[in-house]
Amino acid sequence: MNIELAILLGSDSDFPYMEKGLKLLKNMNINFDIEVSSAHRTPDRTIDLVKKFEDSGAKVIIAAAGGAAHLPGVIAAQTQLPVLGVPITSSLSGIDSLYSIVQMPGGIPVATFGIGQSGCFNAILFALQIISVNNEEIKEKIKNFRKEQQESVLQKSAKLKEKIDKL
Amino acid sequence: MNIELAILLGSDSDFPYMEKGLKLLKNMNINFDIEVSSAHRTPDRTIDLVKKFEDSGAKVIIAAAGGAAHLPGVIAAQTQLPVLGVPITSSLSGIDSLYSIVQMPGGIPVATFGIGQSGCFNAILFALQIISVNNEEIKEKIKNFRKEQQESVLQKSAKLKEKIDKL
Amino acid sequence: MNIELAILLGSDSDFPYMEKGLKLLKNMNINFDIEVSSAHRTPDRTIDLVKKFEDSGAKVIIAAAGGAAHLPGVIAAQTQLPVLGVPITSSLSGIDSLYSIVQMPGGIPVATFGIGQSGCFNAILFALQIISVNNEEIKEKIKNFRKEQQESVLQKSAKLKEKIDKL
Amino acid sequence: MNIELAILLGSDSDFPYMEKGLKLLKNMNINFDIEVSSAHRTPDRTIDLVKKFEDSGAKVIIAAAGGAAHLPGVIAAQTQLPVLGVPITSSLSGIDSLYSIVQMPGGIPVATFGIGQSGCFNAILFALQIISVNNEEIKEKIKNFRKEQQESVLQKSAKLKEKIDKL
Amino acid sequence: MNIELAILLGSDSDFPYMEKGLKLLKNMNINFDIEVSSAHRTPDRTIDLVKKFEDSGAKVIIAAAGGAAHLPGVIAAQTQLPVLGVPITSSLSGIDSLYSIVQMPGGIPVATFGIGQSGCFNAILFALQIISVNNEEIKEKIKNFRKEQQESVLQKSAKLKEKIDKL
Amino acid sequence: MNIELAILLGSDSDFPYMEKGLKLLKNMNINFDIEVSSAHRTPDRTIDLVKKFEDSGAKVIIAAAGGAAHLPGVIAAQTQLPVLGVPITSSLSGIDSLYSIVQMPGGIPVATFGIGQSGCFNAILFALQIISVNNEEIKEKIKNFRKEQQESVLQKSAKLKEKIDKL
Amino acid sequence: MNIELAILLGSDSDFPYMEKGLKLLKNMNINFDIEVSSAHRTPDRTIDLVKKFEDSGAKVIIAAAGGAAHLPGVIAAQTQLPVLGVPITSSLSGIDSLYSIVQMPGGIPVATFGIGQSGCFNAILFALQIISVNNEEIKEKIKNFRKEQQESVLQKSAKLKEKIDKL
Amino acid sequence: MNIELAILLGSDSDFPYMEKGLKLLKNMNINFDIEVSSAHRTPDRTIDLVKKFEDSGAKVIIAAAGGAAHLPGVIAAQTQLPVLGVPITSSLSGIDSLYSIVQMPGGIPVATFGIGQSGCFNAILFALQIISVNNEEIKEKIKNFRKEQQESVLQKSAKLKEKIDKL
Repeated sequence: MNIELAILLGSDSDFPYMEKGLKLLKNMNINFDIEVSSAHRTPDRTIDLVKKFEDSGAKVIIAAAGGAAHLPGVIAAQTQLPVLGVPITSSLSGIDSLYSIVQMPGGIPVATFGIGQSGCFNAILFALQIISVNNEEIKEKIKNFRKEQQESVLQKSAKLKEKIDKL
Repeated sequence: MNIELAILLGSDSDFPYMEKGLKLLKNMNINFDIEVSSAHRTPDRTIDLVKKFEDSGAKVIIAAAGGAAHLPGVIAAQTQLPVLGVPITSSLSGIDSLYSIVQMPGGIPVATFGIGQSGCFNAILFALQIISVNNEEIKEKIKNFRKEQQESVLQKSAKLKEKIDKL
Repeated sequence: MNIELAILLGSDSDFPYMEKGLKLLKNMNINFDIEVSSAHRTPDRTIDLVKKFEDSGAKVIIAAAGGAAHLPGVIAAQTQLPVLGVPITSSLSGIDSLYSIVQMPGGIPVATFGIGQSGCFNAILFALQIISVNNEEIKEKIKNFRKEQQESVLQKSAKLKEKIDKL
Repeated sequence: MNIELAILLGSDSDFPYMEKGLKLLKNMNINFDIEVSSAHRTPDRTIDLVKKFEDSGAKVIIAAAGGAAHLPGVIAAQTQLPVLGVPITSSLSGIDSLYSIVQMPGGIPVATFGIGQSGCFNAILFALQIISVNNEEIKEKIKNFRKEQQESVLQKSAKLKEKIDKL
Repeated sequence: MNIELAILLGSDSDFPYMEKGLKLLKNMNINFDIEVSSAHRTPDRTIDLVKKFEDSGAKVIIAAAGGAAHLPGVIAAQTQLPVLGVPITSSLSGIDSLYSIVQMPGGIPVATFGIGQSGCFNAILFALQIISVNNEEIKEKIKNFRKEQQESVLQKSAKLKEKIDKL
Repeated sequence: MNIELAILLGSDSDFPYMEKGLKLLKNMNINFDIEVSSAHRTPDRTIDLVKKFEDSGAKVIIAAAGGAAHLPGVIAAQTQLPVLGVPITSSLSGIDSLYSIVQMPGGIPVATFGIGQSGCFNAILFALQIISVNNEEIKEKIKNFRKEQQESVLQKSAKLKEKIDKL
Repeated sequence: MNIELAILLGSDSDFPYMEKGLKLLKNMNINFDIEVSSAHRTPDRTIDLVKKFEDSGAKVIIAAAGGAAHLPGVIAAQTQLPVLGVPITSSLSGIDSLYSIVQMPGGIPVATFGIGQSGCFNAILFALQIISVNNEEIKEKIKNFRKEQQESVLQKSAKLKEKIDKL
Repeated sequence: MNIELAILLGSDSDFPYMEKGLKLLKNMNINFDIEVSSAHRTPDRTIDLVKKFEDSGAKVIIAAAGGAAHLPGVIAAQTQLPVLGVPITSSLSGIDSLYSIVQMPGGIPVATFGIGQSGCFNAILFALQIISVNNEEIKEKIKNFRKEQQESVLQKSAKLKEKIDKL
């Protein structure tokens, strides 16, 4: 199967943070592959998966990891595809993971997103934005998603006003 | 002129951090546009520039900013193009800028890079990686850049061994 | 309706933090307007609301936001009215929001208050203090509020002494 | 002499951070008073100065302090005038001062600005914005200041483009 | 009544942190006074209490406070008695309170203890150590407390070994 | 009894963090000793235990502690055996313990591991790696542990794929 | 010689931070002893010095240290005298030393002062305040010191006004 | 050549931090190998070097790196030898590197040392302590090093006393 993007989780416990974005991908009918692999416990498998993702036609790779969170950097060292890294909440609120992902040395970039669930969702949206640079269909889907998002804000504002009246 | 990528600096004092990457773009013959604009001092101009960049064919927008560093987020709110944000060193070592750029709310992503010079350089490299997804020529240029980078490490290792012998 | 102050929440989930202050406003019979709008998801609406608030006679605008928390700064860029920003607790305990609001560049100030509920309450009190500069009635109301607050401390001290006796 | 605003510095070493804003006040012909007083070394004098400032007609009080930086809070406890606090850079980059100023308990607000020079300048601008709520002349002066600020951004952008051409 | 030490809490919600130490004082038959007072909400009362404590013969004053936590510093500015400050856990885990208490300017010292319950307990123990410098009876009581503390460690070690055997 | 490694806990409340690693030691049939002792409450006992551990043939000493966490450093000052320190979660998420353990002065090293449970487990694994330098049997046991660990990753990846199918 | 207080430095490089306070002691004719000793490099000597200080009649012990900064805690474990700890600036701005000194476990208190020079000076002032509890002469000396300090603030305020006139 | 330990630097700019320890190794006649290699720029070479070090008989591997500092973790994933990681000062004072090295996931340990020069020196000392577990000659050398270190403290204390006399 030809895929648009690939996702690598450092641990299966990272799945709940990614769930909302994965549903979006399913709803938008985007082909993707997802695996669990650790930069440290299964280093060879991690490298093999990067090659597999490249061979499947992936245009972007997302990697989420907590703690030392080396996974995105280790992947970026193995491919020229854009790598998106997401820090997951840990014993230090994810600050350790954030620093570890974002402070890559000059020469091997990793695009970093916010800590936890928002970051996971945004990494998936950003992957879609990258793909949409040459894909009008996905561009349109993102446009629609943004419109719905705006309408949701308006509804929340209306509901808030009702609450205020009752104060 | 048709451009590949656009760069927006929150302040002209951010230029030195970006210089190395801009030279790389010139050496690789990549067309780009660059402007100074502030999210707060010139908010209308910032929005206008995003439209101008889109019209010029930019596939990615890079925004660097220090302190509160709202620039990348403000741009991302106005476009579906991938936006890359770089935090610049400030009175808090750039931590304020980093948090302000990376902690975007779910729905409007900004891809964040490291603080200061490495981050600026990596944002430019990452922009090239995005563009190279559909551009074999740039893909080749990145490959060559990485090779030179590897050779440079080997040379440094050799020089280090000489220093050790003299200890 | 002519209003004294306006409040903008980045998300409806910020409402509970603001509730105590809103009740104070109602008790003091202060006219105010309140809306939910996002600096990133609904940027145009945010700018429109600032104009609407100005037209309604607002003398101060309060903006509360979590995460990257660009809302107060984006508003301050659009108006000369005093803008009060409140950081809301997030995955980083609100430190990200605090830095993002307080570290505004020279030229476009945002007055920042404490993280979460105390900050929300204080922003509303501070707005009243600004308005009271030219409003003796509100000045008197603040005076009374402060007196009640002092009496509450005395009562708490008395109750503490009872607890100590029972130790 | 009747003054519009008053400024209290915790130490004379805070003066350089405040200088740019003081010049602005002089250029705009705003009457102000300024003193050095410490919340801890001269606590009685600090309280006396607050009364003096109130008697002189001050509509806002700005207090800048480093380290534990209790000055703004101590002043706010003594007056209903809006108090603006500015954290000054210290051995902890001003983070200690920032937390100490911004985290005021509910009930006694202090409006906080950025660390160091930008914060000092913004506190003065913000004081002017408060005063301008009922002063059309100052409102106009702020408008002009903002215009000049915008033009300065345009000039910097033009200069940057020249630098790029020479790369 | 003549007292040995006085305790001031910024809020009655700080009581649970102090409870263990207060029981120790009761068990050791040490005379003390305790009040709730806020540096900001009841500034005059706070100053009055310091005088009252001095007149009652207090040799040390302990002040516990959360958030901006100015209380210990405000007290230290009013007396030459040794002032012990304890930061209480807040929205920033008590780091704001810690910095605000410990970073006093040169000239007006506050002795600072750990965040929360351990800090409260240690401040009381430390007050006893100060008093014991000229009080053999209290010196003996501290000695006994330390011995019991050591025996408690031994018992815990023994219990741990039992757990290990059952692993 | 001759032991391979010794473990010292600053408090019996640190036991749950260490439990997983202790079970591993039991499963691998490694002889070890474990005690509770405090660097501050029982300083003499701590020094005595170090001598006891040395006499029992320990090749490594592990010390876990929270808060100020001086225990590993105090032990390292008394022995030439490799000392492994583990910071335990405290009121500051274990950052205080981490800094206190890792920032030892040049001349007396302590090898530091991650905060809390992962760090405790890794310290035990690392102790085994040190011992295995001259012990082929333990080397083999570590090899097997790593293999099982890799297989566990594969199983998690397979389970994740099932979850994805059900989204 | 009978001494009033003793000072222990973790390193001779801490001397400049302590210099101002030592001069004050000399000017006030206070007898004190001072030594360099490391909690880790010379642990036995450190314990011996504590006994020596006790035998010389010291009523307080001050310990300054950088990095892991275990010195004050190690001393406090050996004596019932009040121990004052001062964190010295290090690679982490002294935050590591601050946490390591202030976060002592319940039962063995260390009174902590600010990072670097202000903290060193305040620890010495605080030691004098402890001694002055039973020494009217020193009480008077502190009173005079505080008066001079107040006058110095007044002079600085006067000089500032001159600077303002020249702006 | 058979080596006792191997050292890998993430960048040749890390050399000055390591210099003091390397001289110690030369003075003690310890055989070692040292190379520059990057986890990200030369990932394959890094893996090859680990195998080379193992084949040369290395009993420990030291890896120093700044920024994201993945090097020690990447090495630890490839070998069962004890890996010692040293964080190097970066734009975030080395906190990013520290977190990235120390917060390894359970299962693949890295022993971490202090930031910068002290950490580099201590990592080398610790490597010697590991080797000395089965090497009496090196054990003796460490003993002598520690003695000299103690004498140096005594000399510094004596010099300090001279300075005090001159105050």
